[in-house]
Parts: sequence; structure tokens; C-alpha cells
Amino acid sequence: MTKISLVGTGNLATHLYRSFVKEDAIEIVQVIGRKAAPFFKLDKFAQIGTTEIKKADVYIVAVSDSAIPAVSKLLAHSEGLVAHTSGSMALSALKNNVRSGVFYPLQTFSKAQIVDFNTIPICIEATTENDLGLLKQLASLISTHVVELNYEQRRSLHLAAVFVNNFTNHLFYIGQQICKEHNVPVELLAPLIRETTEKIEKLPPFEAQTGPARRNDLSVIENHLEQLKNKSYKEMYSLLTKSIQRTYAKKL
Amino acid sequence: MTKISLVGTGNLATHLYRSFVKEDAIEIVQVIGRKAAPFFKLDKFAQIGTTEIKKADVYIVAVSDSAIPAVSKLLAHSEGLVAHTSGSMALSALKNNVRSGVFYPLQTFSKAQIVDFNTIPICIEATTENDLGLLKQLASLISTHVVELNYEQRRSLHLAAVFVNNFTNHLFYIGQQICKEHNVPVELLAPLIRETTEKIEKLPPFEAQTGPARRNDLSVIENHLEQLKNKSYKEMYSLLTKSIQRTYAKKL
Repeated sequence: MTKISLVGTGNLATHLYRSFVKEDAIEIVQVIGRKAAPFFKLDKFAQIGTTEIKKADVYIVAVSDSAIPAVSKLLAHSEGLVAHTSGSMALSALKNNVRSGVFYPLQTFSKAQIVDFNTIPICIEATTENDLGLLKQLASLISTHVVELNYEQRRSLHLAAVFVNNFTNHLFYIGQQICKEHNVPVELLAPLIRETTEKIEKLPPFEAQTGPARRNDLSVIENHLEQLKNKSYKEMYSLLTKSIQRTYAKKL
Repeated sequence: MTKISLVGTGNLATHLYRSFVKEDAIEIVQVIGRKAAPFFKLDKFAQIGTTEIKKADVYIVAVSDSAIPAVSKLLAHSEGLVAHTSGSMALSALKNNVRSGVFYPLQTFSKAQIVDFNTIPICIEATTENDLGLLKQLASLISTHVVELNYEQRRSLHLAAVFVNNFTNHLFYIGQQICKEHNVPVELLAPLIRETTEKIEKLPPFEAQTGPARRNDLSVIENHLEQLKNKSYKEMYSLLTKSIQRTYAKKL
């Protein structure tokens, strides 16, 4: 039985709690946060500064990057392994802890959307083989995809995730905005969006690329730029088109 | 029984052929192209200029935008309805034809990837109610999602499609490139990409947005920009981040 404390009460902490609580091999001994969060069971919740921090084997620190140093100090006297969940912070951000590690699940977490950790890659890092084993064991309970990454790899993965998730989602938003402005039902885009993702599970994105930029169809590109009134969307169109053109000019 | 001729032998023509040929209510009388395409049955294939153009109820013109005017001339004496399949060309591109229309399936077509037209929106336009009815009937045989759009709507939809498909796919490519450069297995991105799309079937993209730009986390943004050595990727990161920041500064 691994004793776990969760530090944080945001989206990730909530999703981790939901997932850990189902596992027999895990006992959640405490959830530590700055303010009471209605989701968490009160008998396990401790507000920072008001109650003692209970002993745990692993403290999972699911707080914003900027709060990690403060949490590291708070847990300075814990003998357990302290692991943050950030894709962009080094292990050394936990400089006050004797045993430090990283437990980074690569996914986009919204409050409203239930996630299944089972398919979510969890990237781990630790300073000793023992602690690495402990994190691996823990991560394997909730995910089938556990991988050891060093800091350089993890931050690259996080950066790549911004491109494939955050920016992609924003492009979906822009696509819908363009439809709305011209009285086109946004649902028309749904099958295309679905196909875009399904396709790259079978074809590398380099081969899956289609469209005017890929074909270097200058007259369509010119018409599109003329249609776009929003300056920022126009710039984006131009930049992405040039990048696609460059990608295929180089490699063909 | 609707008699159809297909003009063109590219990706779209191939996919349409595969779909039409399965329908009892459709007879494909001819496939017309500039050069013999191995896919098409030879007894139905006619090379432009070498054989007569057979009579058909509908000529589906699945050629590149720039070839549409020439095909329009080629079919100038046909009594059938001539419909192009372009998202970006006006109906008037078929100016030599008495009966003209548009039959635009919104999807990304690659040779290697079989598509199911059933879920693909087909956008139609025609100059008479009769011809509109004919296109609607034809489209409904292969798709459950037939919609009448005017030129302004159709070209906006096409532009939106470039954002949600072409540009999104390019972001997937960039994400994978970043991983490859840093020795991170690209498969790690797959569940995140899947979730990105699945999420927006339940949440509008405005609500689904997460990440440093959405949180306005300047220190992560700065680190990411520092990590990016490729000038074009850096510009893209910057522009998309600013656009997300602006979107949420405005609306919150």
C-alpha cells in the first residue's frame, strides 16, 4: 500500500485524486491546499498552515509552476518522495527536498471533462533508482504508458504539446469564428476535424498534409488572404502557409 | 437511375468514383481525364480530345481550380448539369454551361486513405430549383449531411477548413519535429492529439482552451520561446500565443 499526499486542488489534482482513489494499492492520506476545495472529502483535506502535514510515501505536487518552490519549502522536512507534475520545471525546482522527482502526465485537463489516465503517458524522473522505481510503480497503477524522460526531453515534449494541443485548439476556435461570421453552421467542420486526427494515426503528418499551401496554389492562397479581415488571423494564415511551403520545397 | 460522368482522375475523383459505383441509383457513364489513370475501368475512361463525350445527367468536375474554365468549355454543348467540386470557386467559373452547379464535399482526401462519404458534408449550389433538387438527390445517396450554401458561405467554409485541417496538421508535424530533435518518442503525443479533437466534440474550443497562453503564464512562454531555435516555429509560437492571450483578455 503506497501512501500518497496530493498537494494542490486544481484541475490536475482533482483528476489525479479521482484516479488514485479507485486503486486498492494506493491510500490517499491527505490533500493539501491553500483554500478548501469543495470536491475533496473534508476529512482528508488540510489547509496549508492550519494543520500538520501527515506522513506519506509520495507527495504529488500538482500546483502551478510558480508555486512549486513554496511547496518545496513547505515539505522540506518530509522524508517521503516529493514529485512535481510540471512539464516545464526542472527537478531542481524541488531544491528543499532530499528526495525529489517528477510525475508529469501529458494531457489537457479541463474541469468539465473526465479523463481516463489509462492511455495518458506519464513521464517520470527521479534522482535515485529506488525513487524512480517507486514513481514507476505508482504511475503504472493508473496508466499503461509510463516513460522515463530527462528534463531536456520533458520540456521539449511540453513545448510540442503546446503546438499540437493548445495551438490546434485555437485554430479550431478560429475556424469556427470564420464560419460564424459568414453564417455557416460550425457543425460542418466536425467531420473534417475528426478526420484530421484519425488520419495522422495512420499516416505521418508530413504525408497527410493537403491544401493550397501544400499544392502551392497561389491563387487560392491570395483569395484566402483577401477574405481574412482580422489582421491577426491574416498573419497566422500567411506564416503557416509559408511554413508549409518551405517544408515541402525543402523535402520534395 | 441518374447518369453521371466524372471529369478528373485525381484524389477526389477517385474517392467519388469508389462511392458512386456502389449505388444502384447511379450509373457512371464515363470518366474523362487528360491522361489514362490506372485506377479507372478502361471501358469507361475517355481521354480528352480523343473520344466523344457521352450524354450524362450530371457531370461532376473534380479537377483543380485552375482547370475548371477549360473543362467548362469542353462541356459547353452538354445538356446535362455541370457541377464543380471546388470550395473556393464561384458557380460562375462554369460560365460556358447552361446548367451549372456546385457539389463540394468538405474533407481532406489523400490517395492512401479510404474515406467514407456518409459522414462528409456535401455543400451544393445551383441556379435553378430543379438542378438543386437533382444535386441534393445525388449527394444524399452517398452522404447523410447535404447542405445548401451560397458562394460566400462556401468559400468561408473552405477558408475555415484550411485552419482546422491544413494548419492543424502542420502543427502536428511541428510537434513531432520538436520531439524528434530531442529524442522524445513521437507516439507520446498521440493520446493528447486524440483528446484535443474529442474534447471539442463536447466543449466549444473557446472553453476547451488550456495552456500557458490561456493562463497568461509569461515565464513558461518565455522559456518556450527560448527553447525554439527554428525562426519560423518561434514566430508561429509568438503569434498564436498572442492571439490566444488577446482572445481571452477580450472575452473574460
